[in-house]
Amino acid sequence: MSALFKQLESTNRDDTLPSTSDLLDAVKYNEQGLIPAIAQQFDSGEVLMMAWMNREALEETLRTDRVCYYSRSRGKLWRKGESSGQQQQLKSATLDCDGDTLLLQVEQTGPACHTGRRSCFYVAITPTHAHITSEPLIDPAELYGQRS
Amino acid sequence: MSALFKQLESTNRDDTLPSTSDLLDAVKYNEQGLIPAIAQQFDSGEVLMMAWMNREALEETLRTDRVCYYSRSRGKLWRKGESSGQQQQLKSATLDCDGDTLLLQVEQTGPACHTGRRSCFYVAITPTHAHITSEPLIDPAELYGQRS
Repeated sequence: MSALFKQLESTNRDDTLPSTSDLLDAVKYNEQGLIPAIAQQFDSGEVLMMAWMNREALEETLRTDRVCYYSRSRGKLWRKGESSGQQQQLKSATLDCDGDTLLLQVEQTGPACHTGRRSCFYVAITPTHAHITSEPLIDPAELYGQRS
Repeated sequence: MSALFKQLESTNRDDTLPSTSDLLDAVKYNEQGLIPAIAQQFDSGEVLMMAWMNREALEETLRTDRVCYYSRSRGKLWRKGESSGQQQQLKSATLDCDGDTLLLQVEQTGPACHTGRRSCFYVAITPTHAHITSEPLIDPAELYGQRS
């Protein structure tokens, strides 16, 4: 863990903190320069998805209040909803204790998942069996046009 | 994405699913054999932490209903709460659409964070400033003995 995040462990709510720019310098990006970002619907608490951000995506997200990830498969910034219309408006962004994971509180327009489900988490597992926990709100063909 | 998770996209709630063992074969572990696991307090919805699991940790968690991660720094299984007493009892485990992230609904005993805070997410960032969003519930020295 960076010295800065170590120091924040014993910081109180009314203490003056380093600038966001200094914090982003101390964030522990992985070997690909990425940090995982969990998106949670701000009012219901539902966890919608997890995706990745590089520093540029995170800075754009903070600046615009519209969530922008980094697509590992496409190798470029991914402005959530740019093809589906299912955007995420940022309510707050919070780093964790060791500065290597981000929690985003968002207002999700429609489904977060490319399958048309509200949340990407829908394959529940037990020691032996699995089951599907939710159905699509909308046909993915409608979200993305007739590509499939 | 694996063919199996692709197939689950259009599976309904009453369809018969593959066994958990087949699903765990199809999970997309990273180069270190790990998958990120988000822990959420099952009733309040609070996101407590994110850590990593290998297949062995995930199987043990499902079998025992007590959350076991894989510690990347220690290079071994990490039964959450084994030194602090702050265990996580598993309520449910759900994989995401592309089988590379896990959401755990848990009953967290006391604080989840090693700093004594309930959640590990407490460094809120805006475009310019940061602030601490929560205080420790308990002194970490008490959680871990007088090591610090």
